[in-house]
Amino acid sequence: MTAWSERMLIERIREASKGSADGLITSIGDDCCEIFSSGSFLISTDSLIDSIHFNRSFHPPHLLGRKSIAVNLSDIAAMGGRPRFVLLSLSLPENLEWEWIAAWLDGALEILNEYDCMLIGGDTVKSKELGITVTVLGEPVGDSAIYRTGAKDGDTIWVSGPLGSAGAGLALLSCDHLQPVSADKAVFDALLKAHLNPVPKIALGLALARSGHVSSMQDISDGLATDMAHICKASGVLALIHAERLPYLPELQIAADQLEMEIEDLILRAGEDYQLLFTVKKGQETLFRQSLRETEPGIFKIGEISSGNGVFLKKKSKIEEISFQGYEH
Amino acid sequence: MTAWSERMLIERIREASKGSADGLITSIGDDCCEIFSSGSFLISTDSLIDSIHFNRSFHPPHLLGRKSIAVNLSDIAAMGGRPRFVLLSLSLPENLEWEWIAAWLDGALEILNEYDCMLIGGDTVKSKELGITVTVLGEPVGDSAIYRTGAKDGDTIWVSGPLGSAGAGLALLSCDHLQPVSADKAVFDALLKAHLNPVPKIALGLALARSGHVSSMQDISDGLATDMAHICKASGVLALIHAERLPYLPELQIAADQLEMEIEDLILRAGEDYQLLFTVKKGQETLFRQSLRETEPGIFKIGEISSGNGVFLKKKSKIEEISFQGYEH
Repeated sequence: MTAWSERMLIERIREASKGSADGLITSIGDDCCEIFSSGSFLISTDSLIDSIHFNRSFHPPHLLGRKSIAVNLSDIAAMGGRPRFVLLSLSLPENLEWEWIAAWLDGALEILNEYDCMLIGGDTVKSKELGITVTVLGEPVGDSAIYRTGAKDGDTIWVSGPLGSAGAGLALLSCDHLQPVSADKAVFDALLKAHLNPVPKIALGLALARSGHVSSMQDISDGLATDMAHICKASGVLALIHAERLPYLPELQIAADQLEMEIEDLILRAGEDYQLLFTVKKGQETLFRQSLRETEPGIFKIGEISSGNGVFLKKKSKIEEISFQGYEH
Repeated sequence: MTAWSERMLIERIREASKGSADGLITSIGDDCCEIFSSGSFLISTDSLIDSIHFNRSFHPPHLLGRKSIAVNLSDIAAMGGRPRFVLLSLSLPENLEWEWIAAWLDGALEILNEYDCMLIGGDTVKSKELGITVTVLGEPVGDSAIYRTGAKDGDTIWVSGPLGSAGAGLALLSCDHLQPVSADKAVFDALLKAHLNPVPKIALGLALARSGHVSSMQDISDGLATDMAHICKASGVLALIHAERLPYLPELQIAADQLEMEIEDLILRAGEDYQLLFTVKKGQETLFRQSLRETEPGIFKIGEISSGNGVFLKKKSKIEEISFQGYEH
């Protein structure tokens, strides 16, 4: 176990930030960094705090480094943007091992590299509590970014992949009394990965933005019920979701049984799946399907937008309101 | 004492972020905010942690709110930029009083308003330790931003105002055993204010950028000895500082005596004065003085750049190296 110093960390970050990128004028080493875009910049910032947003006892630092960046990249994906630059602000306890920090940083740099996104600055401070704040900048493609405000009566509602996986993964990892879990690790691998190492849907976000058929979008971080409600509130519309159309992995049912949780709770109300939730403009469904045929077969139509307010779930012949019944973080 | 909730805070921030600004496309309420500039953006981020970067026992929340923003605006000033947008990431303990948070936010919004800078987004999380991360975006004026890399042999070195004030102010506020301090509060008012409520030198930074005569610049956050060394290292030059030309407030000597500190230590090595430190191009001093005559009489020439490396202090006939002898934060 090696003690860390600010100098070690800053040198590692400086080393990683070397090189040039389109639109980068000044990187680390001045009072500010300086960037340029011929269009607009999308910006988002997120803070993760030890023991609240992540659990170091089961989250390997390398994967946490990836996830710390991924959740921010997902915000750019949700606007139909391409990630470009990242700033890191790390609050690190004095007794944290250098090995942990180095592995975290390796994970963060690895995913940044995969998405051609550059670390250009930040800040490192000593603290009692481990905290990670990431600010990401991206650029919209297509005619404009995709906002939460554009859903209209007659649009259809879509989601980019299975729901509830990350919620189940977290529950499995948190329940150390559940002996079967470790034996069944391979069975639950996709669920565990969904929590530990979520994949930001950058390529799909870009394809959706370029298609011209998407009227509103956001990522699912607080659960479908809450995040759909955000779109409905911003757009002034009502969403009707069909329960039987909601996609989930087959092992979710096994996990729910073992965890004694309702599978519907996981699908509708668990957060952090980082799937894209979006609406397709009325009457453009066929064109939309054609435009996406090659890039992304795995998308699911789950409902329709109509006039009104709120999010409703249709299950067999019953309809119930589920607006904002999600995870708040 | 009122308990705080994320909802109260977010509503207050949303309320404050209403309205439009040049270059602002989307503010709070989507996955990202979206901004536009016809030129480049300058970006800087800084984290402040309770009991490390500030002391709540003597720092009124309203002034701490101002300072949290001011230290970031100062980074924009140091590039010759105009501040435009701010993102706030707040990590707040559950037992923090709402009154404290509201006063902090009032101070932050007040100074943002004074500098025509808009709060456009951020994040709020619950934590054990109070932490404040501010990300500021600005735009350079004039032909380009002013970097640390431009100092050249023959340039002169300047500072925008008295040094050591904030360091003495902090020492006075921290020494509660010093009885005379409270009696002499009025005497030390400027020193205390320099720590509690520093003023970012935005107007001067813009005037320096527009003058065309300034070759390098940064703000003094880690003390003159360290910050001058940053410019020397980035520019590959040597700085000779004349001790007798260093500006300080008359009461600094009284404070140093009472504190039993060396006044030279405060002037050279104490941080957080947020004065601008800059170099004027060789042979342009007269033109430079003329260009600034009306905006800023209070600037001080403290030395010269020559070829070589490091920062040296000339005191009477002695010369000693003082590179990086500063505060590290």
